[in-house]
Amino acid sequence: MSAVPHDAATEAPRRPLPETLLAALRTRFGERCSTAEAVRLQHGRDESPFPVTPPDAVVFCESSEEVAFVVRLAGEHRVPLIPYGTGSSLEGHLLAVQGGLSVDVSRLTRVLRIDADDLTATVEAGVTREQLNAELGLFFPVDPGANASIGGMAATRASGTNAVRYGTMRENVLALTVVTGTGEVVRTGTRARKSAAGYDLTRLFVGSEGTLGVMTELTVRLYPLPEAVSAAVCHFPDVASAVRTTIQTIQLGVPIARCELLDVNAVRAVNRQSGLGLREAPMLLMEFHGSPAGVQEQAETVQAIAAELGGEDFEWADTPEERSRLWAARHRAYFAGMQQHPGTRSVTTDTCVPISRLAEIVEASVADAEASGLPYYIVGHVGDGNFHLAYLVREGDAAQRATAEAMSERMVRRAIAMEGTCSGEHGVGLHKMGFLEEEAGAGGIALMRAVKQALDPLGILNPGKIFRA
Amino acid sequence: MSAVPHDAATEAPRRPLPETLLAALRTRFGERCSTAEAVRLQHGRDESPFPVTPPDAVVFCESSEEVAFVVRLAGEHRVPLIPYGTGSSLEGHLLAVQGGLSVDVSRLTRVLRIDADDLTATVEAGVTREQLNAELGLFFPVDPGANASIGGMAATRASGTNAVRYGTMRENVLALTVVTGTGEVVRTGTRARKSAAGYDLTRLFVGSEGTLGVMTELTVRLYPLPEAVSAAVCHFPDVASAVRTTIQTIQLGVPIARCELLDVNAVRAVNRQSGLGLREAPMLLMEFHGSPAGVQEQAETVQAIAAELGGEDFEWADTPEERSRLWAARHRAYFAGMQQHPGTRSVTTDTCVPISRLAEIVEASVADAEASGLPYYIVGHVGDGNFHLAYLVREGDAAQRATAEAMSERMVRRAIAMEGTCSGEHGVGLHKMGFLEEEAGAGGIALMRAVKQALDPLGILNPGKIFRA
Repeated sequence: MSAVPHDAATEAPRRPLPETLLAALRTRFGERCSTAEAVRLQHGRDESPFPVTPPDAVVFCESSEEVAFVVRLAGEHRVPLIPYGTGSSLEGHLLAVQGGLSVDVSRLTRVLRIDADDLTATVEAGVTREQLNAELGLFFPVDPGANASIGGMAATRASGTNAVRYGTMRENVLALTVVTGTGEVVRTGTRARKSAAGYDLTRLFVGSEGTLGVMTELTVRLYPLPEAVSAAVCHFPDVASAVRTTIQTIQLGVPIARCELLDVNAVRAVNRQSGLGLREAPMLLMEFHGSPAGVQEQAETVQAIAAELGGEDFEWADTPEERSRLWAARHRAYFAGMQQHPGTRSVTTDTCVPISRLAEIVEASVADAEASGLPYYIVGHVGDGNFHLAYLVREGDAAQRATAEAMSERMVRRAIAMEGTCSGEHGVGLHKMGFLEEEAGAGGIALMRAVKQALDPLGILNPGKIFRA
Repeated sequence: MSAVPHDAATEAPRRPLPETLLAALRTRFGERCSTAEAVRLQHGRDESPFPVTPPDAVVFCESSEEVAFVVRLAGEHRVPLIPYGTGSSLEGHLLAVQGGLSVDVSRLTRVLRIDADDLTATVEAGVTREQLNAELGLFFPVDPGANASIGGMAATRASGTNAVRYGTMRENVLALTVVTGTGEVVRTGTRARKSAAGYDLTRLFVGSEGTLGVMTELTVRLYPLPEAVSAAVCHFPDVASAVRTTIQTIQLGVPIARCELLDVNAVRAVNRQSGLGLREAPMLLMEFHGSPAGVQEQAETVQAIAAELGGEDFEWADTPEERSRLWAARHRAYFAGMQQHPGTRSVTTDTCVPISRLAEIVEASVADAEASGLPYYIVGHVGDGNFHLAYLVREGDAAQRATAEAMSERMVRRAIAMEGTCSGEHGVGLHKMGFLEEEAGAGGIALMRAVKQALDPLGILNPGKIFRA
């Protein structure tokens, strides 16, 4: 594992697209096949700090059959192919490190079915989470910060602030339509809530980051809108007390819906950007779902725990407007953090540990960050044991970047030693390939490679991601 | 798909165990390698109606390394190998249709760790669910009827009565130690609650029925014991009203912990066996978990729904003794059903459908069963859309067996047409191989076969199960 394991990947060999391939794409897709530089540049980056690495062409697909056509053609020519949704991934998933085609599914935006009685929806892969929730009198809970596509969220096994109660994409995708590495359109799973019928192909594709197939349709679980919702903010003298409050809440079995940590730096950034006027101290932002009485009971339990651990200024946000303002601010924390320090990009960690170890890893990592002198902030889905410490490094400053990557590496080593994971929700992409090797070990990597070889025998699906070539 | 697709499998070629293999096993395992007929017969059956099909030898393993030794040896000799826990599977999973070795892991009974603060436990594969729960001040919720081994439950993706609230083995296994098809000992997953680090190997092995590897250790999720528990029984004029009550309960988002249907035949059988004196009418047996106030609120909501749909005699079972008696009776329903008709075995269905279709499939299947004249009964985890209609056929009566299998086939076709699954929780084994082909389609089966070939290149792991050779 090297401190900056990913930059090497951009040095992989590239060869120009075969002319016959391009001609076939242009015949079928016309204007929807683009080699314009602006389009290629847009599709050669995500929200990671990596240098833009554009594909050779971008194809805007509008159906599973079109995706299958592109996959078969790419297979014939042994050309790499990267599925693209909204470009909001964080670990370099979308960079065309071996050139090839970007298969843009963002025009697959039809909500195909809402089965309200069954609490399921079937959508095309380019539908975004905000679009889906806007069409519902129900609730799709998985909410990464960005307004990501449902396909991209499944591909990276995304979660977000509601996962502590409602689970991640792992728990909330019931079935998929996938274009396989050989260009077949295959349906995995059914609309039944559970199944013991054969291998769990759905969960094999969820989190596979475009390396095993291209998702084109997804059937997801929905939830009734909670009868009552209440949010609360509580401040703490230090991050550790906030974390300990979370740990006790989870251990008591309180069905808290959201439990988010913001450190003082994140609160400050959010205040600047959103004018919220929050007290600038470490803080938990919590939400409770249930019946009116149930919500009150949960909140009182947590309030009592917080009070014992030094929590102060427990404040309610009961109106939808207040809640929206708080959660919008939370979701903007990532960009707010960077805006505090113009000209920087963020090197973001994503460890997730067994909850009993959370205070310990946060404290050690804060000490490391403080000693480095780099600006940083912390936000965390602490109810899951998952937090993000983002180091802000000046764009192009190799020394700062190396300092940040070295801290990130130390944090991952801590997490693995605590039986945790290098990625709670952002995925592996380019950035965490070395970390995954440490976490999964040679045996685990060998199994993953065997699966990759079996489902993508031509090696064309997002090559150079998840594991090194 | 043929009506009795499985019997053909028992005709597959067998060859005697190589003497050198047997000698190597005897040297390493001594008395723990047995070719005694009684031992072989015991390991050549499960709770399915198939003829006993014994392995050629049984090896009682006591560590991952011992399992790995057997797998490597079996690989060298290309001899099939079937993991064996408690023998309680229901679809012919354990039958040695191609001969070979039964690898008995029932002596792997150590509870390795209980991490109460993290709500996780790590156990060896032979630990049973009752053993695990007895050692806990916490709660492991997955409860198939039998006192199955945790390894077997994971291998068949088992669920049971608590799945509607707590999920199945799919949601409750965090990590595994697996012996792979090439005899490597590999750890999948960590103790973190969520992860986006690479392919979901854990969930690939869960439900793979011993065809991709042999599980030797499992890390599972635990839950705090609910502060309050309340159970209730409610009777209905017909099965459809009970099912509709369930549907509305789920649609309203009531976090009911258990919601079990027993038809009049099942109630009658349970009364005979357990002397419960329940009114002999279709019935829901429900349980609510939460705070005292929360439990009461949930129960009142369901009571109101039931009353609107013709439910009568809503009765509480608040003491632990009463509840235990009811749930013990429910768990014995399978055997009680058979005991009503001595000399019969049960052909059991296991469909699971989107909940809006549940009443319809139950009614159609009851009409079919009534017309057949065969004795039958229904129990169901109806909160998940999953139910079991068991046809009781005289042992050795081919005509009755064919009638039952034909009804089972019609029911599976109905379930698949309703976007449901042929197996909610029992797995595929021998019995549902033809059904899986219909459900997954050629594309899905091709993906599963590719995975099988990749992880079991020698084809030695429980061959002839899940898909036809």
